[in-house]
Amino acid sequence: MDSFNFYSPTEFVFGKNRECEAGQLIKKYGGKKTLVHFGGGSAVKSGLLKRVTDSLDVEKLDYVLLGGVKPNPRDTLVYEGIELCKKEGIDFILCVGGGSVIDSAKAIAAGALYDGDFWDFYSGKASIVKALPVGTVLTIAAAGSEGSGDTVVTQEKTGLKRGAGSNALRPRFSIMNPELTCTLPPFQTACGAADIMAHVFERYFTNTTEVEITDRLCEAVLSTMVKEAPRVIADPNNYEARANIMWAGTVAHTNICGVGRSQDWNSHNIEHELSGLYDVAHGAGLAVIMPAWMEFVMPHNPMRFAQMATRVFGCAMNFEKPEETAKEGIRCFRRFLKELGLPINFKELGAKEEDIPLLVEKLGLCENKTWGFVRLSSDDVAAIYHIAAKATL
Amino acid sequence: MDSFNFYSPTEFVFGKNRECEAGQLIKKYGGKKTLVHFGGGSAVKSGLLKRVTDSLDVEKLDYVLLGGVKPNPRDTLVYEGIELCKKEGIDFILCVGGGSVIDSAKAIAAGALYDGDFWDFYSGKASIVKALPVGTVLTIAAAGSEGSGDTVVTQEKTGLKRGAGSNALRPRFSIMNPELTCTLPPFQTACGAADIMAHVFERYFTNTTEVEITDRLCEAVLSTMVKEAPRVIADPNNYEARANIMWAGTVAHTNICGVGRSQDWNSHNIEHELSGLYDVAHGAGLAVIMPAWMEFVMPHNPMRFAQMATRVFGCAMNFEKPEETAKEGIRCFRRFLKELGLPINFKELGAKEEDIPLLVEKLGLCENKTWGFVRLSSDDVAAIYHIAAKATL
Repeated sequence: MDSFNFYSPTEFVFGKNRECEAGQLIKKYGGKKTLVHFGGGSAVKSGLLKRVTDSLDVEKLDYVLLGGVKPNPRDTLVYEGIELCKKEGIDFILCVGGGSVIDSAKAIAAGALYDGDFWDFYSGKASIVKALPVGTVLTIAAAGSEGSGDTVVTQEKTGLKRGAGSNALRPRFSIMNPELTCTLPPFQTACGAADIMAHVFERYFTNTTEVEITDRLCEAVLSTMVKEAPRVIADPNNYEARANIMWAGTVAHTNICGVGRSQDWNSHNIEHELSGLYDVAHGAGLAVIMPAWMEFVMPHNPMRFAQMATRVFGCAMNFEKPEETAKEGIRCFRRFLKELGLPINFKELGAKEEDIPLLVEKLGLCENKTWGFVRLSSDDVAAIYHIAAKATL
Repeated sequence: MDSFNFYSPTEFVFGKNRECEAGQLIKKYGGKKTLVHFGGGSAVKSGLLKRVTDSLDVEKLDYVLLGGVKPNPRDTLVYEGIELCKKEGIDFILCVGGGSVIDSAKAIAAGALYDGDFWDFYSGKASIVKALPVGTVLTIAAAGSEGSGDTVVTQEKTGLKRGAGSNALRPRFSIMNPELTCTLPPFQTACGAADIMAHVFERYFTNTTEVEITDRLCEAVLSTMVKEAPRVIADPNNYEARANIMWAGTVAHTNICGVGRSQDWNSHNIEHELSGLYDVAHGAGLAVIMPAWMEFVMPHNPMRFAQMATRVFGCAMNFEKPEETAKEGIRCFRRFLKELGLPINFKELGAKEEDIPLLVEKLGLCENKTWGFVRLSSDDVAAIYHIAAKATL
């Protein structure tokens, strides 16, 4: 096990109707004037936004609204939010939505206390050392952004999708009401499940040995997803399954599953170019890329894949040929994704094999920024895209 | 799944030599004058205390020493510590030691900011709303106190062992260097393992249904202990096994394994009377009580025990007679404890069956304060003590 620091100071407030505590929580964490950040019309139409702002009214808290966050959140709205924060003297950001809204809010929070261009944090030119406090009301179980210090934003003019992170971005509180996720369509629900599992796999495939505790914690989240995700696809209103998935999504990304070990986020980076270029859902892109990445890197450590196959998918161990067990585990994962209704190849995703050179070029030097299992060349990345393009069950 | 709040703001600083960062961390968390609280001579003899105070000297931080904490920490030293804090103007408490030292430090931290008798918190007369900030340098993997808001103290004159808890007691930071645990004798190491597993079992046996994610997290910690505890008994200097156990001990007790579900701490309470009366190690008492409690309550929900048996101990499921699988799981657990070198009955522990009426009387109304699986009568408690008294493999 490697040395590590683990710090997850967010207060998680979980259960039915908890969004009505937003005002109290902002007050508790010192907010006086809040930017309420959200996405499209669904938060308005469903009445969620009103319930939330009503709770701010009860506490006599001032606020300003900024909606319009799109999936794969854009830098353009972030610039707008930063201006608004400075102009209005905002001292707290409450986001109501899923990972995109939270990621946008984190970018605004960091940018509002920074004199330069906020994109410096995403291009690697500057590090985030301070940010406005953020609170969240989560509506989608997927990104884990409600419990992480991470954020991903897309630059509109280039289509570049880049991440940044800092403990300063960890939300002060995150309100999680599983009921709010019940209206999410099956496809988005499945995309969220893929994202949650990818967050675990990217920690699971490591070169660090002797990490039984974090291996087991990873497997706990994965096993939960294998059980619960098909249940919500079959019955979207299953509160209990929604609740298990929602909490699993947070556990997957606070880094409790990843401390003390190398991690490998190459497959996330490889996917970012897909959703950047085609504006497809991140989780759908992961469903295509993740198993392809697994197939390509499996020979590096077949036993690790065999462990996943036996412990998570219940495969029988082939002690003479562990590679066979490893392959069977990857097959199980791809079949599981397909059964959730997700795409498993380029055609189903809406991507084009002839774009692969462009995808590889856009990924550029970013490709190995966070490798911790297998370092990839540009040719390797192209090979993974080609596996993903042609994948079948 | 039930509604819940989860809040674990402690910064965990894990790995070799990290104790040398104590001074920097106290400074980061605002301490100016620190009470350094510790136990017996081992922290002095090993040089650990000097390494820690040297790191305070480097940061030019003032401090006062208070040693002498015993296992099952006493109220008498807590009173002394509170006086010292008030007299010296202490604004931070750093504890160097195991669960007993941390629990004593938390009591001092709460008492130092309270006008009444600190025992009010432990007798249930008052709630802890504020406390001096606490940091820890952990030397024993067991109590989980480094990541919890809980504390247990024994009243010297009565032998009563009582607990209190508050988020205000959660350490600001906890330094965890697994190397520091390598000198711990096998018996204490095994006691720690029993305590860690008990903390999980007390969350695992619940009346809340549909808690797959927390079930799986519990099983992750338990499976890790089943693998790693025998390794440290066989080879006390196995850093990797020590590291896995140390982090498992923290995960077991931040409550990440217990949110959203009823919990049942009766077996912990039942044990407290044993260690209170005989001054035996808490973990040794748990090794005697926990399987006995399991045998007594198993008929309430055999399937839950069968799940533990199959998922943690790898027992085969007997679908026709799940009670048999449940019993086999409890047998496996007792055998596992015995193989670690722990007592499994009163005689091996040094307790007397004829004291059972006294134990039941001392436990008094405390017995069901925290039941969430099976509510016990005094007769039930007596029955559990009798099972524990006579237990064999």
